[in-house]
Amino acid sequence: MFESAEIGHAIDKKTFDAEVPALREALLEAQFELRQKARFPVIVLINGIEGAGKGETVKLLNEWMDPRLIEVRTFDQQTDEELARPPAWRYWRMLPAKGRMGVFFGNWYSQMLQGRVHELFKDGRFDQAIAGAERLEKMLCDEGALIFKFWFHLSKKQMKARLKSLQDDPLHSWRISPLDWQQSETYDKFVKYGERVLRRTSRDYAPWHVIEGVDPHYRSLAVGKILLEGLQSALNRPTLEVESHVAPLGEAVDKLTLLDSLDMSQQLDKDDYEEQLITEQARLAGLLRDKRMRKHALVAVFEGNDAAGKGGAIRRVAAALDPRQYSIVPVAAPTEEERAQPYLWRFWRHIPARGKFTVFDRSWYGRVLVERVEGYCSPADWLRAYGEINDFEEQLEDAGVIVVKFWLAIDKQTQLERFQVREEIPFKRFKITEDDWRNRDKWDAYRAAVGDMVDRTSTEVASWTLVEANDKRWARVKVLRTLNRALEEAFDKSEKKDRKGKKGKK
Amino acid sequence: MFESAEIGHAIDKKTFDAEVPALREALLEAQFELRQKARFPVIVLINGIEGAGKGETVKLLNEWMDPRLIEVRTFDQQTDEELARPPAWRYWRMLPAKGRMGVFFGNWYSQMLQGRVHELFKDGRFDQAIAGAERLEKMLCDEGALIFKFWFHLSKKQMKARLKSLQDDPLHSWRISPLDWQQSETYDKFVKYGERVLRRTSRDYAPWHVIEGVDPHYRSLAVGKILLEGLQSALNRPTLEVESHVAPLGEAVDKLTLLDSLDMSQQLDKDDYEEQLITEQARLAGLLRDKRMRKHALVAVFEGNDAAGKGGAIRRVAAALDPRQYSIVPVAAPTEEERAQPYLWRFWRHIPARGKFTVFDRSWYGRVLVERVEGYCSPADWLRAYGEINDFEEQLEDAGVIVVKFWLAIDKQTQLERFQVREEIPFKRFKITEDDWRNRDKWDAYRAAVGDMVDRTSTEVASWTLVEANDKRWARVKVLRTLNRALEEAFDKSEKKDRKGKKGKK
Repeated sequence: MFESAEIGHAIDKKTFDAEVPALREALLEAQFELRQKARFPVIVLINGIEGAGKGETVKLLNEWMDPRLIEVRTFDQQTDEELARPPAWRYWRMLPAKGRMGVFFGNWYSQMLQGRVHELFKDGRFDQAIAGAERLEKMLCDEGALIFKFWFHLSKKQMKARLKSLQDDPLHSWRISPLDWQQSETYDKFVKYGERVLRRTSRDYAPWHVIEGVDPHYRSLAVGKILLEGLQSALNRPTLEVESHVAPLGEAVDKLTLLDSLDMSQQLDKDDYEEQLITEQARLAGLLRDKRMRKHALVAVFEGNDAAGKGGAIRRVAAALDPRQYSIVPVAAPTEEERAQPYLWRFWRHIPARGKFTVFDRSWYGRVLVERVEGYCSPADWLRAYGEINDFEEQLEDAGVIVVKFWLAIDKQTQLERFQVREEIPFKRFKITEDDWRNRDKWDAYRAAVGDMVDRTSTEVASWTLVEANDKRWARVKVLRTLNRALEEAFDKSEKKDRKGKKGKK
Repeated sequence: MFESAEIGHAIDKKTFDAEVPALREALLEAQFELRQKARFPVIVLINGIEGAGKGETVKLLNEWMDPRLIEVRTFDQQTDEELARPPAWRYWRMLPAKGRMGVFFGNWYSQMLQGRVHELFKDGRFDQAIAGAERLEKMLCDEGALIFKFWFHLSKKQMKARLKSLQDDPLHSWRISPLDWQQSETYDKFVKYGERVLRRTSRDYAPWHVIEGVDPHYRSLAVGKILLEGLQSALNRPTLEVESHVAPLGEAVDKLTLLDSLDMSQQLDKDDYEEQLITEQARLAGLLRDKRMRKHALVAVFEGNDAAGKGGAIRRVAAALDPRQYSIVPVAAPTEEERAQPYLWRFWRHIPARGKFTVFDRSWYGRVLVERVEGYCSPADWLRAYGEINDFEEQLEDAGVIVVKFWLAIDKQTQLERFQVREEIPFKRFKITEDDWRNRDKWDAYRAAVGDMVDRTSTEVASWTLVEANDKRWARVKVLRTLNRALEEAFDKSEKKDRKGKKGKK
């Protein structure tokens, strides 16, 4: 895989000097067009062998192009805010907006390679990390991002010579590499695992470019030209709309969905309600104060028919708790900054730190509900969203975030009655809009969308709880009880894992 | 100051139960109107004696109102990201957007009171902190924010009884207070310094409300009513526009400004330029790698006439450096999220961590330049901006951030020539727009604005450097040299301070 990057590519100074001016102009043109159109972001990943000119190349790109439109990001030590959240959070928060270019030094690949070379983990986890990177990049590309992946290569001999000369250079000797590149074994391992990474993650939508790093003219020109061609071809593509080749999701032949299996007559009388509510609220308060919560975070997703009582249920959950421990994210139309980012970005930014609890009042499931039904995104977009969402939630779960999802279901008649009440009571009139009546007209389409959503995203990692919400009391207690059970199960599970881990070490 | 909060205010349960429903409805109404209009944010500061019901009251407000529109923020331990920036950064990043309500537990007042009670500093620094809080609140209010400041009070006897009962309550005993409230001396000090805070920071635009905390009914109703009245009166105010009583800034009688004193014929020939450029670039690279930089951050502000060569100068600065160390913030029209915040918010979010360097390509000075000249804000807004900006920069300087500000000046004829070139050269055509020609028509108005800006914001803390930029070479070298001098001066200054500090301790 690296053979042709050890054959001594070189460009003489004269050729280089002759070619650079035109390349620079074209890059600047492309960069300004990128900003003008602001249709997609550009992500440049910089990886490879130490001393192969990674830093120098990025520096040169900043000179050639307009550095005001480039964000160079390094990911060294995680900060404590990053450590308290799933690993991908630090990358999400640094994604460039549409129209801008982000250069990621020390990205997800460096992190996994560091870990593997230092034997922090074995191939199993390494392969998981590789697969995770693939999913992330696929999603980013599907969202329109243009990704360049550069691997700067040197043969072992070349590297040793280069490190020697860097060491003698007073401007560079201060830099201490995190991997001990002086050791011959490090190089071998890095190349071996690097090959595995490149093999598995070079894809049509985000291929790797291996650049021989010995000759500065060659590597600069090579990178510049790849960037230019990629930028130009993406800018000239008439649209980013992907045509979906997937057949539309069909209804069940008998039109039955999971929602039909709910017993909508479930209810609680007032006394039972008050007793159970208080019990479950106290239980929730206790669980969130539990020491074991320090290893976890809690995310509760509330979706449901309009007027199904999401707000009331959320208030009953909140009422149990110290307001310093939770936050509630009402999800409405995305802001301008959110629209300039991949779909899931606006949810990633609100993922709670360990020990905390976030309630999403509507959520990322908007993609497969309102956006699907109203046609705000293409079928290809919402069809791929199921997989993206499952992947997102799996990442949360892996990091100890407990994800609990509620669909609050009411029947059509109950909704009508509640709409009418809302229109009459002054302090509820904010809760009813024209949109609500319009959505009601699309009752069946929403119903089908909910069925598909639950079928495709109710997973072992984060299952859906359908809540019969014709009776508000029943719904509220069920929500609280479900949260409590989820917390207890998660606590038990991680205790068992800890015990197993300790045993394994003995 | 606390006398009338020790007289045993109480409300019986019957009265409470009778009053709450109407209060709740009215609060909900006000809250939804707040969101609907989204004209200003609401900031609620919670302070006072331990055990006086602060947490309980906030909890209750979350129950009474819609918790989805309330953000409760705690400020305990600073995270490492916060510790690397000026102290106020953590508050700025948590400000609620227009239309929302932020409840700040553990805000700036708690931080200063903690410090003073624990004798981490003396009255001098305490008073500085008090004055800082005042300036912050004044600015927030001028930007439209509605601020409520609640001080929950208990007499010493009441507090002791309350702490005892909390200790016996299994739901509360886990909470360890950061101040050791058990000690009688702590209470005395806290009340003493608290009074000083209240005395100095109770202002017409943001008064303190002292609430006796013994009786839950009383304190809840009191807080609820104060909130309601404040919200309603702010919502009913027809506009937030403040009429300025200040006479417009007059020109000097002879119409001379500082810009007239520049020798615009300054220039460098090519050889001198190249030699000096390389020298200054190497010097800058060295200084930013200097160990002493770890205690500092660097902020460079670039303002100037259109086509004065800001971009080119910034590129020459960037070219000296490792792109991982700096970032460039191009300042254009604010985004939606930025418009929902006080003016300075969008600059605070980009303030570099210690060791880093941020270049602002245009800056907060837009307020007193383009916004003033084009009438994008009221005279009152830009007139108060001079003071706000000086305060902002002083906060940066106090935290070790070195602020260097450049005005790149060209004459009118040079600008015309550069505009014409830009229109002709393809890769420069992005750099010229209709706006540029329009701004040129207002040359004199901008000139006056620049004069006022420099007069009012060139301070010991962060002075302006006027750069004669008719000759680009001269300008670029002057920019680099000025940065280098500023870094050296700052390093020297903090070394001297350190030495003095060490001597003082001996």
